[in-house]
Amino acid sequence: MKNMLIIHGGGPTAVLNASLYGAVAAAKASSEVDHVYAAVGGTGAIFTEDFLDLKTIPDEQLEMLPGTPGSAIGTSRYHLEAEDYEKMPAIFEKWNIGYLLVTGGNGSMDTCGKIAKACASAGIDICVGGIPKTMDNDLAVTDHAPGFGSAARYVAETVREVGADVRSLPIHIVIIEVMGRNAGWVAAASALARKHPGDAPHLIYTPEVSFDEEEFLRDAKRLFDEKGGVVVVVSEGLTDKNGKNIVPPLFTIGRSTYYDDVSTYLRDLIVRQLGIKVRNEKPGLCGRASIAFQSPVDREEAILAGKTAAEAVLAGKTGFMVGFRRLDSEEYAVETMLIPVEEVMLDEKKMPRSYLNEAGNDVTEEFIRWAKPLIGGELPDFAHFNG
Amino acid sequence: MKNMLIIHGGGPTAVLNASLYGAVAAAKASSEVDHVYAAVGGTGAIFTEDFLDLKTIPDEQLEMLPGTPGSAIGTSRYHLEAEDYEKMPAIFEKWNIGYLLVTGGNGSMDTCGKIAKACASAGIDICVGGIPKTMDNDLAVTDHAPGFGSAARYVAETVREVGADVRSLPIHIVIIEVMGRNAGWVAAASALARKHPGDAPHLIYTPEVSFDEEEFLRDAKRLFDEKGGVVVVVSEGLTDKNGKNIVPPLFTIGRSTYYDDVSTYLRDLIVRQLGIKVRNEKPGLCGRASIAFQSPVDREEAILAGKTAAEAVLAGKTGFMVGFRRLDSEEYAVETMLIPVEEVMLDEKKMPRSYLNEAGNDVTEEFIRWAKPLIGGELPDFAHFNG
Repeated sequence: MKNMLIIHGGGPTAVLNASLYGAVAAAKASSEVDHVYAAVGGTGAIFTEDFLDLKTIPDEQLEMLPGTPGSAIGTSRYHLEAEDYEKMPAIFEKWNIGYLLVTGGNGSMDTCGKIAKACASAGIDICVGGIPKTMDNDLAVTDHAPGFGSAARYVAETVREVGADVRSLPIHIVIIEVMGRNAGWVAAASALARKHPGDAPHLIYTPEVSFDEEEFLRDAKRLFDEKGGVVVVVSEGLTDKNGKNIVPPLFTIGRSTYYDDVSTYLRDLIVRQLGIKVRNEKPGLCGRASIAFQSPVDREEAILAGKTAAEAVLAGKTGFMVGFRRLDSEEYAVETMLIPVEEVMLDEKKMPRSYLNEAGNDVTEEFIRWAKPLIGGELPDFAHFNG
Repeated sequence: MKNMLIIHGGGPTAVLNASLYGAVAAAKASSEVDHVYAAVGGTGAIFTEDFLDLKTIPDEQLEMLPGTPGSAIGTSRYHLEAEDYEKMPAIFEKWNIGYLLVTGGNGSMDTCGKIAKACASAGIDICVGGIPKTMDNDLAVTDHAPGFGSAARYVAETVREVGADVRSLPIHIVIIEVMGRNAGWVAAASALARKHPGDAPHLIYTPEVSFDEEEFLRDAKRLFDEKGGVVVVVSEGLTDKNGKNIVPPLFTIGRSTYYDDVSTYLRDLIVRQLGIKVRNEKPGLCGRASIAFQSPVDREEAILAGKTAAEAVLAGKTGFMVGFRRLDSEEYAVETMLIPVEEVMLDEKKMPRSYLNEAGNDVTEEFIRWAKPLIGGELPDFAHFNG
């Protein structure tokens, strides 16, 4: 019997713990696994050997995982160096680790691939697998990744709610900024808020299309004159035609450069150029932590991804990330697949141009068809007296 | 038989339509009321005579009102002048209005009182009543007002969710800005997020206590050094010891002066003074429009307020606003009362000092006891492995 080690990497999603639940359930169901360890607080715990045996956690706590945001075992953005990878095999041997799972986005899959290679070089017998996780949906090859469906539902339902507010008191342009520095999947998903003609969002901007301030001001003004209340959804990262961030950098701490918020920048632009009342909103972390807006499809798929990865390493597979392939069926359905981890390491998936309209200020029907099943059912219906 | 007219004023809440539902249900149940009109889009509709007969709306639509954010009949911030009030009685007579209900905050109650006075001066027989509505909870005399409980639940549940995220990836100070320009009730309600010792929010700032930047930086630094992940909740309006907004004004449009966001201001302060990684979030309108976070107690009380007001005007009462008196019972219970509208007109209720701790950076147990029943039941429980 060998032990399993599970590590979380990068920012949490609304279903990161659901994947943990799936992996732990599969590991507990197997007679091959002795201890199921979690690296507490992410990869750094490998070196401090801060391992929590999840078999000691009461079932009642484990059952709450799929409804718990964040990471119940912690996570990190710890950057591993070449010498860190060299140290790992000895630690894994000491702890009799035979199965290793890393849950995360493309950075974590890079880690996952490098760990697999380091263990192979050291000649230790350990199966390493990746569980996909990203609210941004920027993981390559897989149709989509756990975390995105809930972020998409959050933004769709929130924009529908705010849309009802703005429609009933049409006195301003409201700019809602959502996560997505290089890919616009989450902003695009706000289009799922619409039910009636003219519903919010009225404009959507993503990093995939270069942002033109003049066009934006023209569109915003036209819609404001027509409706009085306009909802604009923007990704946090927008660039101009030269590929430069439209917001100038504010300052740098360590390896991070800070920008002001795109929503603040556009607010000031509207006030100064158009003199129109405007609000800027930024739910930020709320959009990746919300259980109230969790997508039931995303939750089930996250559990499935965890279970599939655990079962795969138990079956001797290594060097993969679990992915989803969409079936060619009338009803939405997916099957899991094991993707060689090199194919997803550090690769950032952007939206295809066909998912965005020609003007670059909205999505296409093709995107809606792709995204709709992921939010897990219809949004709540609201009373709608006129039209 | 006379007709009823219902008017909404000011910004929507998550339960403004629930109050409408209660009023319409009571009016429809009465044999005294012929048409139940809504002034479409607020007080301005009185002069354009844009009245929607709510008896023509299908029941299926009316039943959806309590679960619909915004205002299904519209609302406005239209400022009425003395000559507007003089014009009203003739219009009400023309439309055979015998009962008038105004739903809103202290500004709308001012309108309500002035309409009652104008009708009395003109010698027309019309009963005028107010239905309280404010997410800010700044209405005087009443224990609390519909709209607040849902805004409180939104902020409590959201901060609990974000708290789980920040606890699992403790790399930054997160500043969450919520509504409340002059009163801190909503920011204070974030304290209801806590379940375990050390839970978010870790600091709470409200407009009732003057904000000291040095103390804030000291507290934020100490908590960051201790935890690595800190959640700070701030009201949008914070002032220094001279009563001046801590954020300088940006620009003015019409009667509105624009300030930058407090959360942005504090973010920059932390980065510049402490060099610590920081995020600023501002759910903004999301916090007053969310049905997912609606408080069931708030929803029921909103319906009750609408029903009580309609029944009171039907019984010949005039010049009042419905309020809630909390009963001196072990289980939370309220009774409705009719407050003379002059007692609430334009009066802004702030938090009593006893609801805030001495340092002015948190609430007291007394506030928690007062606020807890209003969010309508326990928040969801999360898995919590250590401690």
